[in-house]
Amino acid sequence: MPTAAETVEKVVSGDIRSVARLIREIDDGVPAVRDVLKALYPHTGTAYVVGITGAPGVGKSTLVDQMISHLRAKDKTVGVLAVDPTSPFSGGAILGDRVRMQRHSMDDGVFIRSMATRGHFGGLTQSTRSAIDVLDAMGKDYVIVETVGVGQDEVDVVRSAHTTVICVIPGMGDDIQAIKAGILEVGDIFLINKADREGSDKTMSDLRLMIDMDQKKYEDGTWKPPILKAEAVFDRGVDELIEEIVRHAEYLRSVYGDLRFRARKDKVREELAEMVKARLLDTVVGRIIASGEFDAAVDGIVRGQVDPYTASDDLVLPKIVVPDDE
Amino acid sequence: MPTAAETVEKVVSGDIRSVARLIREIDDGVPAVRDVLKALYPHTGTAYVVGITGAPGVGKSTLVDQMISHLRAKDKTVGVLAVDPTSPFSGGAILGDRVRMQRHSMDDGVFIRSMATRGHFGGLTQSTRSAIDVLDAMGKDYVIVETVGVGQDEVDVVRSAHTTVICVIPGMGDDIQAIKAGILEVGDIFLINKADREGSDKTMSDLRLMIDMDQKKYEDGTWKPPILKAEAVFDRGVDELIEEIVRHAEYLRSVYGDLRFRARKDKVREELAEMVKARLLDTVVGRIIASGEFDAAVDGIVRGQVDPYTASDDLVLPKIVVPDDE
Repeated sequence: MPTAAETVEKVVSGDIRSVARLIREIDDGVPAVRDVLKALYPHTGTAYVVGITGAPGVGKSTLVDQMISHLRAKDKTVGVLAVDPTSPFSGGAILGDRVRMQRHSMDDGVFIRSMATRGHFGGLTQSTRSAIDVLDAMGKDYVIVETVGVGQDEVDVVRSAHTTVICVIPGMGDDIQAIKAGILEVGDIFLINKADREGSDKTMSDLRLMIDMDQKKYEDGTWKPPILKAEAVFDRGVDELIEEIVRHAEYLRSVYGDLRFRARKDKVREELAEMVKARLLDTVVGRIIASGEFDAAVDGIVRGQVDPYTASDDLVLPKIVVPDDE
Repeated sequence: MPTAAETVEKVVSGDIRSVARLIREIDDGVPAVRDVLKALYPHTGTAYVVGITGAPGVGKSTLVDQMISHLRAKDKTVGVLAVDPTSPFSGGAILGDRVRMQRHSMDDGVFIRSMATRGHFGGLTQSTRSAIDVLDAMGKDYVIVETVGVGQDEVDVVRSAHTTVICVIPGMGDDIQAIKAGILEVGDIFLINKADREGSDKTMSDLRLMIDMDQKKYEDGTWKPPILKAEAVFDRGVDELIEEIVRHAEYLRSVYGDLRFRARKDKVREELAEMVKARLLDTVVGRIIASGEFDAAVDGIVRGQVDPYTASDDLVLPKIVVPDDE
């Protein structure tokens, strides 16, 4: 096993094997990884992070594949994290629908990994953030995080992005239910993919209506999410998407002066709260579940001797230090 | 404030206002709710829980609306929980796309609530389980849990169901990516809604292929998920869906002897692990975030004096009791 300092040195120098191993260990929840991440931290903060999210089947992987080509043409290096919590494969596996990205696999300027993060309790958001740190520290100009689905997990994951692109396709619903309020909130750019399909204008006007409902919000110059059309499979609309991402980056720089999240108190608060949750679960839950006490409680519930609410109180409360004043 | 015993008595007698308030309090993470849930627990275990999940836009709400009518026609009482983690509305709100279910709002045999669960750290899975307990204890024959999205949260939520129905629509992707492995795993019944659309036969054969890949699994009589077609908006295919749900219930009874989850050790283990996590987060995280220590750590990170990994260690580790042998 290399020491934390050795791993950091290799990651920062861009050593592919060290990066791949580190991300796999993050995904598996290997405890020793934490020391590496601490030491890697001062090397982070230069990558621009783009989140791509939307329901399954909207063509996110194809879009990301095209984005890689466009960014490479501008001589930018790219890291991709495909986050798929429902995948049974653990970290590092290239999923079936990621295969099309393999045309970039011989390009040293591109690094693609999938994460599933079923191995531990710290959760998806936490391990994705850590993996972003790794790709950032290895020197990638852009890190693209592709998430499958539109649940709370995905919303949390894309909160780590500078720019979040919400992908939809025409005809996903008669009403605007394809884009729920919580998703709208995190979208910096909306992209209607497969825009040659029937209903694309309807989707455009629905989205516009939703965004315009917040019209007052934009009067002070706040970023108003543009809505783009694309047919990623034919490479149509991808250039415009990259342009809008760059324009959004300029907007962020004009507002915050600094693109590093960690210079922004709101982002740091959010991130630290997430890390506190993950750390707590990592440290305590596994220990409880592995204990004989836990098994005894399960038996008690099955026999009807105790309810699960009381049982979990009995398992958790003795593990916590309660302050003097409570 | 009524006592826990008073609330339990009212809920068990089917008092709508008490049930509504209790579910809202669960959604908001009101601490006192825990005592009510403990006392309510012995009254649970009779409802049959059906999970309905799938990407946004597949028509889940319309389907649930029709299912209610069919179940009412058989004189069954129905509770519905519409779980939408991306909604900015908190518990009890009837969401826009739930409006069509309002035709059942004057029917005493039907109780519909939406949950958003942003109010606390225990998480969506936990509060949904507790809300299911409430509808169960109030005497509903069926509890239908509708989840929006296909992320890990949603997978976890539908694990609380006896029968999980995965809804898809034709043309959601060129390949099978609309149904990821993790979702396939939890599906007891697949339903292709909007089956009049182009590509419905292709979706059917893709699904069949995926299910048949596990052929060996079914040789010993294990439940093999049927694939149904429906056009819920025209009430087509809903009768068949109800029939398959009843058939799945019979299968479960034949295997486990007892439909109560809490007689099943595997389900109890899963539930208790979830409760332990939720309890831990509820008890500790809010306290840490509200503390001056947390704010100081945020400042330290912004100034570059500490990394968030070390900061979260410093915040969390003193709050937990480490056993003597570590």
